[in-house]
Amino acid sequence: MKLLRFGPKGAERPGMLDADGAIRDLSAHVADIADDVLTPAGLARLATIDPACLPLVEGGVRYGPCVGHVGKFICIGLNYSDHAEETGASVPSEPVMFMKATSALSGPNDPIIQPRGSTKLDWEVELAVVIGNRVAYADEKEAAAAIAGYCICNDVSERAFQLERQGQWAKGKGCDSFGPIGPWLVTADEVGDASDLAMWLEVNGRRFQDGSTRTMIYKPAFLVSYISQFMSLQPGDIISTGTPAGVGLGQSPPLYLNPGDTVELGIAGLGTQRQAVVAAR
Amino acid sequence: MKLLRFGPKGAERPGMLDADGAIRDLSAHVADIADDVLTPAGLARLATIDPACLPLVEGGVRYGPCVGHVGKFICIGLNYSDHAEETGASVPSEPVMFMKATSALSGPNDPIIQPRGSTKLDWEVELAVVIGNRVAYADEKEAAAAIAGYCICNDVSERAFQLERQGQWAKGKGCDSFGPIGPWLVTADEVGDASDLAMWLEVNGRRFQDGSTRTMIYKPAFLVSYISQFMSLQPGDIISTGTPAGVGLGQSPPLYLNPGDTVELGIAGLGTQRQAVVAAR
Repeated sequence: MKLLRFGPKGAERPGMLDADGAIRDLSAHVADIADDVLTPAGLARLATIDPACLPLVEGGVRYGPCVGHVGKFICIGLNYSDHAEETGASVPSEPVMFMKATSALSGPNDPIIQPRGSTKLDWEVELAVVIGNRVAYADEKEAAAAIAGYCICNDVSERAFQLERQGQWAKGKGCDSFGPIGPWLVTADEVGDASDLAMWLEVNGRRFQDGSTRTMIYKPAFLVSYISQFMSLQPGDIISTGTPAGVGLGQSPPLYLNPGDTVELGIAGLGTQRQAVVAAR
Repeated sequence: MKLLRFGPKGAERPGMLDADGAIRDLSAHVADIADDVLTPAGLARLATIDPACLPLVEGGVRYGPCVGHVGKFICIGLNYSDHAEETGASVPSEPVMFMKATSALSGPNDPIIQPRGSTKLDWEVELAVVIGNRVAYADEKEAAAAIAGYCICNDVSERAFQLERQGQWAKGKGCDSFGPIGPWLVTADEVGDASDLAMWLEVNGRRFQDGSTRTMIYKPAFLVSYISQFMSLQPGDIISTGTPAGVGLGQSPPLYLNPGDTVELGIAGLGTQRQAVVAAR
């Protein structure tokens, strides 16, 4: 299944993609793509619904973030060997983990808002895991079963805020609009093997990232198990699993986003995102 | 006003402290101590209620975290000159900011759960700010007006997870039970001047922290303004503002918590917390 949320910001409704790629309204069945709806039992219930029997949503509607009520927005850093290399970092001996503010979440085609004072606005196409079951101290098998599905995440980053403003990355990772997710949450059964998905990102039509989850160091089930040794995970938690080579920071010389730029990105089977860069008011 | 949440974990009800220090049930008036209830208008409405007219809650009830629906749990590091010194760090030229997982939130007297594999479990008594208005790019005056109130936070930390497990502090700060807040959210009008509040923490009856917000480097209104330059803040967001000297890491030799230990802490006007340390199952 491809699950999604559509409509105005803050008033999104749950939806499902039908066989023709049109949006169907799930409001009569669930309140949101969130919480218990993401559990195995919740997804099994949704799977019994024939999308063709649901109200068709007119085209041109806005996509919201594909998951609601996100409790934790966790990111893994330096999780592709080629990206670690381009940033001058060595491959970490265990996953590097940090948190993005949940207020950074935005729709897949919403603008990227360049914060005031930003000079090093960067992009990162990432495969994000959506948690579907509470887990703590999970082994990899249990962790794999707790993955409701996957979506695209652009882990938008302000490198000066991240790296030059007194330690810890939170300031450069959590700005409003820095976490477009979607367009869809694609359930794990439909994605199947997530270990060789093509992924790409273009700025103004020029391809900067052209990779695959094949070069990911720590894989999704391992990451869910690993993180669950430190903290419990709940349905709706998002784990963005890192980016391959080709970010702005890795260019020579580094190259960053400015208002007027357009970012497009995609992952095989998970759709595409398109963001215009605008200046914060 | 002293606002609070009481009852079983995950099913807390809103309450208010009366003049005798007894809990009164606010359920008939608001659904939770969260969201719009924390705005100036929401608090003004609560202020018109006479606690003596509310149902009295029997003693012995559990206190939950004093705020519900917390979107962001932000912490400031090294924000007391004496604490920066004891950890061997220099006073930062601007605030050090990191995020605690919201799943770490717990009631003020709930146990501290020592995670599996933890060897350096530490404590930090902190003054936490509760946000009551959405702010972005706020000046200090606007920031001060966006503070709904204050509460105690024990910024429980696992130093090995925080400092010895591949950069970034999230792993050692966000474990379940590592964020007791409460017992009360004390509204800003009742706290008044928060710049000289006595604060203390004892382990098994021995006092380790004995400080005051007087030695805080970056003050609450400055911090709210500062953070709002990076990301918007929403009602219910928590900002824990750092700890004075006397943490376990700062002892010579360092001294950490173990199952069986009891931690008690307090801040003048904001009540006290008491946590038993237990091992994770």
